[in-house]
Amino acid sequence: MLEGLFITAEGPEGAGKTTVLNKLGTALKQKGYKIVMTREPGGINIAEQIRTILLNKENTEMDYRTEALLYAAARRQHLVEKVIPALNDGAIVLCDRFIDSSLVYQGYARGLGIEEVYSINRFATQDLMPNLTIFFDVDVEVGLKRISDNQGREVNRLDLETMDFHTKVREGFKLLLDKFPERIYEVDAGQSLDKVYSAVKSKIEDLINNKP
Amino acid sequence: MLEGLFITAEGPEGAGKTTVLNKLGTALKQKGYKIVMTREPGGINIAEQIRTILLNKENTEMDYRTEALLYAAARRQHLVEKVIPALNDGAIVLCDRFIDSSLVYQGYARGLGIEEVYSINRFATQDLMPNLTIFFDVDVEVGLKRISDNQGREVNRLDLETMDFHTKVREGFKLLLDKFPERIYEVDAGQSLDKVYSAVKSKIEDLINNKP
Repeated sequence: MLEGLFITAEGPEGAGKTTVLNKLGTALKQKGYKIVMTREPGGINIAEQIRTILLNKENTEMDYRTEALLYAAARRQHLVEKVIPALNDGAIVLCDRFIDSSLVYQGYARGLGIEEVYSINRFATQDLMPNLTIFFDVDVEVGLKRISDNQGREVNRLDLETMDFHTKVREGFKLLLDKFPERIYEVDAGQSLDKVYSAVKSKIEDLINNKP
Repeated sequence: MLEGLFITAEGPEGAGKTTVLNKLGTALKQKGYKIVMTREPGGINIAEQIRTILLNKENTEMDYRTEALLYAAARRQHLVEKVIPALNDGAIVLCDRFIDSSLVYQGYARGLGIEEVYSINRFATQDLMPNLTIFFDVDVEVGLKRISDNQGREVNRLDLETMDFHTKVREGFKLLLDKFPERIYEVDAGQSLDKVYSAVKSKIEDLINNKP
């Protein structure tokens, strides 16, 4: 039994999850909680090497199944080297994206099948799932507009996917809500950032206060 | 339905499989067959990048599950880019090591479980299995002696494993013989190279002649 709490944030780019997560991490630290903020590949050397292959623009011939296996491999190493030690140490781990991103992006939007991608990820995680996942739901056009308004942010490979793809991603997350109703909490990320923040904060405080 | 024949060779180092495979490839080419000789990562760019991570001696912190996922990823890309196109083209593909090496080395000798490693590999291969697998069986000490007698050959990471590890590898291959009796053909690689070669050759000729 792990001592800490494992909380992940999911949703499309432009939903505000990174901003909310950072603010939350700061607030919880001020309250005296031990907080580990991370995102895959999390600065783990081997996971960064894998990430380099995934992000290399020259690798246009990469098969979707190869891609899914590489994400699972990087996830494994990040979990073993960073997440599990932090949980053993009693920390609250706030992780920006985790297994659900693979289920949605590779499993659903790329069409490999949610169950199939889940199966290789269970090999990677040995069924260590987050205690809570916050799904930041936002209308596709609103999310994309926020990204394009954010001048400081670099456009990445996924931003360039079609509108259809982003719509499928949102559909995929909705399917996961049905599949994992206990674990995933949906927040309406179309609201103001303040409202989103306070909804997420009170959900997480509930979790902390009700920890067995 | 693929047109060609997919034949793999398995067994420990020092069992003579590479030598026998090369000789066989040459003989079959002379008879006019279209032959593709390969081994993972097979010169496939993405698979080579993955291999670099696997072979990097600095990566001592690599978890066994990360390792198994990386092998499966490299296998997928090699299969998609090289093996399947060759089979579609009607070739006989002779591949030095394939899925069974993962089942034995990671699944059995490393202790991850043959079934678990098989499951991620089925994701990688979509159940494309070899038509025939030749298992070159040799006594562990005989195999290791052959390697150390072969001055021209560089010692690799696996050669340095313990005697126990090599014994487990042999046990693992024996388990696969029970699991896949139709597909795997065992040859006594403790015999002279000529005898091994002619046993393998006649097995493969049978397969070619009885191809539906």
